[in-house]
Amino acid sequence: MAEDMKQAALDYHANPRPGKISVELTKPAETSRDLSLAYSPGVAEPVREIAKDPELAYKYTAKGNLVAVISNGSAILGLGDLGPLASKPVMEGKALLFKRFAGVDSIDIEVESESPQAFIDTVKRIANTFGGINLEDIKAPECFEIERTLIEECNIPIFHDDQHGTAIVTVAGMLNALELAGKTIDKARMVCLGAGAAANACCKLLISCGMSPQNILMLDRKGVIHTGRDDLNQYKAAFAVETECRTLDDAIEGADVFLGLSGPNLLSPEQLTRMADKPVVFACSNPDPEISPEKAIEARPDVIMATGRSDYPNQVNNVLGFPFIFRGALDVRASAINEEMKVAAANAIKDLAKEPVHADVLKAYGVDSMEFGPDYIIPKPTDPRLLSVVSAAVARAAVDTGVARVEYPVHYPLKSAKDIVY
Amino acid sequence: MAEDMKQAALDYHANPRPGKISVELTKPAETSRDLSLAYSPGVAEPVREIAKDPELAYKYTAKGNLVAVISNGSAILGLGDLGPLASKPVMEGKALLFKRFAGVDSIDIEVESESPQAFIDTVKRIANTFGGINLEDIKAPECFEIERTLIEECNIPIFHDDQHGTAIVTVAGMLNALELAGKTIDKARMVCLGAGAAANACCKLLISCGMSPQNILMLDRKGVIHTGRDDLNQYKAAFAVETECRTLDDAIEGADVFLGLSGPNLLSPEQLTRMADKPVVFACSNPDPEISPEKAIEARPDVIMATGRSDYPNQVNNVLGFPFIFRGALDVRASAINEEMKVAAANAIKDLAKEPVHADVLKAYGVDSMEFGPDYIIPKPTDPRLLSVVSAAVARAAVDTGVARVEYPVHYPLKSAKDIVY
Repeated sequence: MAEDMKQAALDYHANPRPGKISVELTKPAETSRDLSLAYSPGVAEPVREIAKDPELAYKYTAKGNLVAVISNGSAILGLGDLGPLASKPVMEGKALLFKRFAGVDSIDIEVESESPQAFIDTVKRIANTFGGINLEDIKAPECFEIERTLIEECNIPIFHDDQHGTAIVTVAGMLNALELAGKTIDKARMVCLGAGAAANACCKLLISCGMSPQNILMLDRKGVIHTGRDDLNQYKAAFAVETECRTLDDAIEGADVFLGLSGPNLLSPEQLTRMADKPVVFACSNPDPEISPEKAIEARPDVIMATGRSDYPNQVNNVLGFPFIFRGALDVRASAINEEMKVAAANAIKDLAKEPVHADVLKAYGVDSMEFGPDYIIPKPTDPRLLSVVSAAVARAAVDTGVARVEYPVHYPLKSAKDIVY
Repeated sequence: MAEDMKQAALDYHANPRPGKISVELTKPAETSRDLSLAYSPGVAEPVREIAKDPELAYKYTAKGNLVAVISNGSAILGLGDLGPLASKPVMEGKALLFKRFAGVDSIDIEVESESPQAFIDTVKRIANTFGGINLEDIKAPECFEIERTLIEECNIPIFHDDQHGTAIVTVAGMLNALELAGKTIDKARMVCLGAGAAANACCKLLISCGMSPQNILMLDRKGVIHTGRDDLNQYKAAFAVETECRTLDDAIEGADVFLGLSGPNLLSPEQLTRMADKPVVFACSNPDPEISPEKAIEARPDVIMATGRSDYPNQVNNVLGFPFIFRGALDVRASAINEEMKVAAANAIKDLAKEPVHADVLKAYGVDSMEFGPDYIIPKPTDPRLLSVVSAAVARAAVDTGVARVEYPVHYPLKSAKDIVY
C-alpha cells in the first residue's frame, strides 16, 4: 500500500475520535419518567418477563439484532498471529460493515486465551448476550474445533467468516464462471492450492453444490494431499484422494478450475497454459494473487478470472456475504447457520450477477454497463440489492430447514440497511 | 409499581424496537475509499501499530471510551438470582445511563458461569477489549473475590458499582448530613443494618473518610457482628467489634447514624426515638425503606433523612456516581479506580450539594430553590454539573496517585455529555 494511503488509514482510525464505532441510545432518556422506565424501577418488569420466558429477551432487549465479532487475533488478515488486542481494528471494522450493509448492531470482543478450550469456554459463557457470533481471524486447524464445539453448545448462529463467508462468495462466482465456460460443476476438475480454513470451507461448499470430491486435488505446502500421506491432520485427510499427482505441476494438467488460497505468484503462466479450455482461475491471495490477471490473460486469453482485489474485475469480497447472511438468520431467529443456508446465500449471490442492473446502480458505480460475462461474474460490494436478495434467501432456507424460531418476515424483502428498525 | 407503569416499562423496552442501545458508526463508510480505510487493506496499518505498541489501541480503536457492564445475574436489583439473561435489561439500562450522563460507550455482557472462578477467567480473557469494566448485580460474598482478583489481574478499571457506586453516593450524602447535625465523622457512631456488598463498601469508604471502625456496628440477619461470633465469613469478620450489643434494639441506643441496606420496615419509630440528637437516617432499602420518611419525621422531627426513592428528598442514586467516575478514569487512562479516586468522587458530590444552583438548573427541575439543608444534602440525579465536577475530581485523584497513564485533560472541566467526542 502506498505511503499516503497508510497515513490516511491511520488518520481515519484516529480522528476526530479513536476507532470506528460507538454505542448509542435507541430510547428516550431525558425526563425522570424516561429514566424510571429505562432503569429503576421500571426495568424490573422486563427482567421478570425474561426470567419466566428466556425467548422474551428478543422482545425486550437488543439481543436479537446484536452480533459479536470475536477473535483471538491468531490469524489477522495476512499478517499472522499478532494477538487479540492488535486485531481490534479489524474486528471493529467488521462491526462497521455489519451495520453499514445490513443494519446489524455489532460489537467486537477480543479474547486472550491460553488454549482453544479456554477460547471456547469464554465465548460459550458470554454467547447468550448476543443474537449471533461471527468468529474472525482464528488460525487453522484450531478454528475448526472451536467452531464445531461452539455450534454444538450454543443455540445462536456461530459463523467463522474466514471459512464460510469466503466459501459462499467464492462458490457464487465459481458457479457463474463454470456456466460461462460451458461446464457443469459435477464434472469440473479443480486444483485447490492452499489447505487452510478458507480452502477447507470452499471445497466443502463446492461439494454441497455438486462438485465431486474425487475431482478436487488440494495442495498444502508439501504438495498434493493424497491417501498415501501420513502427515495429514483430520481436516486435510478429509480431502485426501487416490492420485498419482504429487505437485502443482502434476495436478494442473487439464484442470478446469484453479482455486488459489495460498500466496503470491504460485501459479506460473506456463502452468496455466496446461489447464483445460476456458480455465476458471480464482487467484484469491491478497494483496498479491497467485497469478496476476495481466499475466493470466496473456498466457490464456480464454481465462475466466477472479481475485481478492478491488482494482480488477470479479472481486471475491466477504462483505457480499456475512452482513446479509446474519441479517437473514437474525430475522427468523435461526438457531444456527446450516449448510442449506450457506448454499442459499451462494445461489442468491450467483443469481444476482445475472440480473439486469438498474440505471441508478450503474450510476452509483460510475460505469456504463454491468453485464453478466467474464468480467462480471460476481456482484460488486455495496450493490444495494444484496440486502434484499441474500437476506431473504438465507431466511427462507432457515425456515425451510426448521432452524428458524419465528416465521419468515412479512416485511421482506428489505429495502435499505438504514431503514432497518428491529 | 402501578399496573400502568409496569405496562409502560414493557412497552418502552419493546417498541419501536427491542432494547435500549444500538451500535453506530463514527466514521464515514460510504465510498469504496472509506471502506478501504476502515477495513481491507487500510486496517492493516493500525493493526501493525498496535502490535508494536499496545497503548496505541487507545489511539486507533474505540477501546478508550468503551466500558463493559458485566453481570452473572446472581443478584438482580432486589429480585435475586434470576440468571444472566434475565439481567440483560438492567445491564443495557446501565449502558444507557453511561452514555446519557457521561458520553461513555457501554455494552452489556451477561456471563453464564458455573463458578466464581469461571466468571473471573471469562472476564479476564475479554477485558482488554474495553477501557474499563463495570461489574453489576453479582451477589455477595462472591462479588468480593471476583472484584479483588480482576483488579489484581487486569490493568484497566474494574469497579463493582453495587459496592462502590453506592458507597460513594451514600458517603457524599452522609458527610453533608453529619455537617448539618453538627457532628464530625471521626466521632460519629453508626449502626449499619445489612452486611452485603453495599454495606461492606459503604463502611470501608466511611472509614477511609475518617469514621472509626470501633464506631460501626454492622448487623446481618443474625444480629450484631461482634468478635464473639464464629459464623462469619472473612468479609463480615473484618467489621466485627467487641461489644455487648446483640440486636438492633441494643445497637440503636444513642447512635448518630443509621444506615439501612437491608429490607422494608426494619427500623421502628420507637427505635428511632432512642437515637442521638439530630439522627442521620439513610434508609436505602428499595422500593420500601427501612422506615418511611413520614413515620421517621413523626417520631423524630430533627431527623436528617435519605432514601433510595425519587419521590422523597435526598435520593441515594448510583447514577450520581458511576458515569462520571468512569469518565474521569477513562480520560486519564487510569489503570484502576483506587480508594483515593472514590474518596475524591464522594467529596465532589458532597461539595456540589453546597454550591449555589443556577436559575437554569432550578427551572430544569421545576423547583424554586435548592438550598443546602436537611431536604437537600445530595445533588439530584441529572444535575448537569455532576459531569464537570465529579469527572474532574476523579481524574485529578488518578493523576495525583500515579495510576493515570496520560496527563490531566486540558479540555476539563467537561460541559456536556453530548459534546464529548473521544
